[in-house]
Amino acid sequence: MPDIRACLFDVFGTVVDWRTSVSRDLAAFARRKGIAGIDWLEFAVEWRKLYQPSMDEVRSGRRAFTILDVLHRESLDQLIARYGMKGLLAADVDHMNRAWHRLDPWPDAVAGLTRLKTRHVIAPCSNGNIALMVNMAKRAGLPWDCILGAETARAYKPMPEAYLASCRQLGLAPASVMMVAAHNGDLQAAKAQGLATAFVPRPTEHGPGQTTDLAPDPACVDVTAADFIELAAKL
Amino acid sequence: MPDIRACLFDVFGTVVDWRTSVSRDLAAFARRKGIAGIDWLEFAVEWRKLYQPSMDEVRSGRRAFTILDVLHRESLDQLIARYGMKGLLAADVDHMNRAWHRLDPWPDAVAGLTRLKTRHVIAPCSNGNIALMVNMAKRAGLPWDCILGAETARAYKPMPEAYLASCRQLGLAPASVMMVAAHNGDLQAAKAQGLATAFVPRPTEHGPGQTTDLAPDPACVDVTAADFIELAAKL
Repeated sequence: MPDIRACLFDVFGTVVDWRTSVSRDLAAFARRKGIAGIDWLEFAVEWRKLYQPSMDEVRSGRRAFTILDVLHRESLDQLIARYGMKGLLAADVDHMNRAWHRLDPWPDAVAGLTRLKTRHVIAPCSNGNIALMVNMAKRAGLPWDCILGAETARAYKPMPEAYLASCRQLGLAPASVMMVAAHNGDLQAAKAQGLATAFVPRPTEHGPGQTTDLAPDPACVDVTAADFIELAAKL
Repeated sequence: MPDIRACLFDVFGTVVDWRTSVSRDLAAFARRKGIAGIDWLEFAVEWRKLYQPSMDEVRSGRRAFTILDVLHRESLDQLIARYGMKGLLAADVDHMNRAWHRLDPWPDAVAGLTRLKTRHVIAPCSNGNIALMVNMAKRAGLPWDCILGAETARAYKPMPEAYLASCRQLGLAPASVMMVAAHNGDLQAAKAQGLATAFVPRPTEHGPGQTTDLAPDPACVDVTAADFIELAAKL
């Protein structure tokens, strides 16, 4: 293992629990607005299903680079129509869209990142945009050294440029940078660009019946840790 | 004064003391290498004199956007030739160039930023590149929420895009963002784009005989504070 100077983190699913956070946030909003009859866990999952297709428009080159807040908003507008929600103000929809700025970290995340930060540069390498990452970090106490990822790279993971631009912006060779994720696909793409990789399982990201990403893919994973605290101890 | 959500900071001169830091760093390097006969305060000032002309190549469009580490290195190569320094290894010149990553903060900077961070997003809006800002912050303990500025905007201050991209990346209107600088020129350019402005004098940035930027320009400055601690109290 070469000398690792920086750790880049996938965020949605790896650092924060998007599924229960989005549903909790929207359910609270619905209670305040008197909106009933919607299963907000299902709504969160449906919203997330539109995530990859929305980025594919950018990855394919059919659409100029567009930040995730805008893609999330377009997907939300589709869902609001599909669920037949009426009478929402623009400010209400803005608030709903920023549910992604208010995600809760997994219980080990803040302590693990704080420990990792003492010896490494730590930054997200997420498809979330800068404002989303900054607002999430302020609320959750994520102690990032800087915010990298899709917006600074102008490319969505798993495109090679998302990883390579993040390394370049840190002034580091890919071999000195470790990508940390709960998703083997992310680590496979990072490894293909020469980054070191760490797998941290998040076996309930998709709920109690999760079947994917329960174990590391040995073909692309250098280090496996049960959580960020164990990862800090291993590095 | 509208509600200020984020403070953007000029860094060289405003947050850190580049003149004494660069000269101190290079003098220590010279002692280790047995290099004598160079006035390192003068060397630092000569290096800084090449700063604006090097960025003007980019601002004018004659040169594609190039990060400051590269511009600093080109200027350093010129100075090494001018001073007749011989026998330096590439690693030595790399180390000298990274003197700009090892600048010391003004005495109030860390305490003031830490206090400002509790209620505002704080970020550099500097012409320094991301790696330079990250390494400086790690060493000096500057608690930025994220790193913005020339590299994320792909434009050097005082070009409008340097300020506007930073606001956009935070998801904020310029009127909700305050630019903090020890240089009236920087604040004039920020004010022209609709940002709020704060002037913090750094009367020894250029040494004991400084004649510029000793007082705020009332035409473009909203708030003046003696240091970052007073600024935090005023906001």
